[in-house]
Amino acid sequence: MALLSYTKLLPLATTAKNYVITASRSLVSKQLVYTEFGNPLDVVKFREYVVPPLGSQDVLVRMLAAPVNPADINTIQGKYPVKVELPCVPGNEGVGTVEEIGKEVKGISPGDKVIVTKPVQGTWRDIASFKQDVLKVVPNELGLVEAATLTVNPCTAFRMLSDFKPVREKGLVVIQNGANSACGQNVIQICKAWGIKNVNIVRNRPEINELKQYLQNLGATYVLTEEELRSTSIFKDILIERPSLALNCVGGKSSLEMLRHLQHSGSMVTYGGMSRDPVTVPTSAYIFKNFSSYGFWMTAWNEKASSIEKDKMINEVISLMTEDKLKAPVHKMVKFDNFAEAVGNALTSKGFTGCKYVLDFC
Amino acid sequence: MALLSYTKLLPLATTAKNYVITASRSLVSKQLVYTEFGNPLDVVKFREYVVPPLGSQDVLVRMLAAPVNPADINTIQGKYPVKVELPCVPGNEGVGTVEEIGKEVKGISPGDKVIVTKPVQGTWRDIASFKQDVLKVVPNELGLVEAATLTVNPCTAFRMLSDFKPVREKGLVVIQNGANSACGQNVIQICKAWGIKNVNIVRNRPEINELKQYLQNLGATYVLTEEELRSTSIFKDILIERPSLALNCVGGKSSLEMLRHLQHSGSMVTYGGMSRDPVTVPTSAYIFKNFSSYGFWMTAWNEKASSIEKDKMINEVISLMTEDKLKAPVHKMVKFDNFAEAVGNALTSKGFTGCKYVLDFC
Repeated sequence: MALLSYTKLLPLATTAKNYVITASRSLVSKQLVYTEFGNPLDVVKFREYVVPPLGSQDVLVRMLAAPVNPADINTIQGKYPVKVELPCVPGNEGVGTVEEIGKEVKGISPGDKVIVTKPVQGTWRDIASFKQDVLKVVPNELGLVEAATLTVNPCTAFRMLSDFKPVREKGLVVIQNGANSACGQNVIQICKAWGIKNVNIVRNRPEINELKQYLQNLGATYVLTEEELRSTSIFKDILIERPSLALNCVGGKSSLEMLRHLQHSGSMVTYGGMSRDPVTVPTSAYIFKNFSSYGFWMTAWNEKASSIEKDKMINEVISLMTEDKLKAPVHKMVKFDNFAEAVGNALTSKGFTGCKYVLDFC
Repeated sequence: MALLSYTKLLPLATTAKNYVITASRSLVSKQLVYTEFGNPLDVVKFREYVVPPLGSQDVLVRMLAAPVNPADINTIQGKYPVKVELPCVPGNEGVGTVEEIGKEVKGISPGDKVIVTKPVQGTWRDIASFKQDVLKVVPNELGLVEAATLTVNPCTAFRMLSDFKPVREKGLVVIQNGANSACGQNVIQICKAWGIKNVNIVRNRPEINELKQYLQNLGATYVLTEEELRSTSIFKDILIERPSLALNCVGGKSSLEMLRHLQHSGSMVTYGGMSRDPVTVPTSAYIFKNFSSYGFWMTAWNEKASSIEKDKMINEVISLMTEDKLKAPVHKMVKFDNFAEAVGNALTSKGFTGCKYVLDFC
């Protein structure tokens, strides 16, 4: 076993379970790592590292769970516009238990449940040290998967519903495609919690009725297939007002069809491109309907936001979760050793499955 | 001659030249009018009307010049999303001389040069009465064509350069397609007056060198054909910074090519669709480049703006014109009787000719 130094891992003199204690009492972390960009199933491998000494601002965390997100896959493939240094431990979010804290760490104590709130920290490892400012203590009663997957999809949904149109303040209607995606399920639940009517577009499929029922149970006002949207009369018949905000993770015909149903001065926010087709907008929509079109990327938001803004958002999301108003989308726990199953799922689902795979370090 | 009443025309007891004085001393206006939507060359006809008595808020204006704009043509065709009542006198802008004022009119005097600042007032007639609040007195030294064509293209250029990105305050670079259009020529001149570098895209044509020279003389920093834009190195070589604002009146490939050269967080404003292709935006531009896309329509702006905002804009445009920093685009004066020539030109040019036809009532 090669024990190489890895700056992000720090040593701890302890005999906690699962720790590999070497002759010099070094702590060893089991981690996934890649040294070159490529197919995750080829380039991501296990290795064990001695954790270096804990710095004064550092927190040693035993990871409990970390999801496999589309962005993780794209980063490993070298296709994601976030710079990482190689070798790199993948994983952008996750939850763990604090084992030990550095001398100057404040507000975090051993035993606390913490989430990683900043990307590219490397969460796919059983034990890791993080700078205190990338962690946030969460309530113990917060569900494991909710905590592990809190910073990407729920926060993306939260921001898109907050930053572009005053949907919450004015009770404006929201329409979204890819409504069964992990983010889409969060959008529906936050809409319900905030009393916002929402129209949800999904692709047709054999189990469409079950899917509609599932999304309606989450809080969907209407669920329509893309075909049904084309000929729907719900807006003409004023069963629901025309949407002011469209959330788009598909592009192509799907986003075009959504924007056709928008109110005057409506906006569309694009956060994904599942169809791989670009967003197409008729000139007349821009000029005569005062349509406007934006993009959203959680990573970019996090880079610009103040810690106060981030805290406000995360606290609100946590409240929704602990009040049982926001639960994690359909997911499957996969033992850390079987990570290839989770990665394979993310690769074949093109990143927009309704079922998220979560690495289980317990 | 059938003398029908027409509520927008008011009588005046005067013997000014060109007035047709009937037995009862009624004033007769010669006007273009259409009673049904259709091909302007078929449905627009001359007629003469007795001008009804001047109301207390009304101003009698002898028109001097009025342009034939694409919007005029589209309105007559019934394709423009502005409601008009039939029968309708076409013409949305123009300049004239005040002949007489109603009892309660303030700030406007006989002999003043005035422009019509609100659409759908019907400027294609030799004499007309307008409510005082749709008129603005302009300096006598303001050029006839500049005055007649002030409210659409110069104001559109002014607003697009003011309302979406702080190009003036921060010296950001602007890129536009259809740069030889009437609006495009205004954009170039306002950019020059404000010290804003600008990149101008035009279609290739036999007389491309003359066109480039003409636009450079107006103030263009760079003029490129659409083909040249695809392979240009001016941004790579940092001869000019990447643009932050793109103005689009073409759509399709042209707008796509422009947005590829934008800075991070750049915006595009669409105000026309000359290619008849929609605006297409790659998903990655929205998400990873924080691109945003808007539309602009002068008519809608005018409906929402306060009279203070309008005055501020028009005064600034007039100043630019009287300081010789902003001149009317290439134009041709056409005698009122020969209006069909002007309309025919607007029909065949698809509304984006570099040469604007202006009706001459003198």
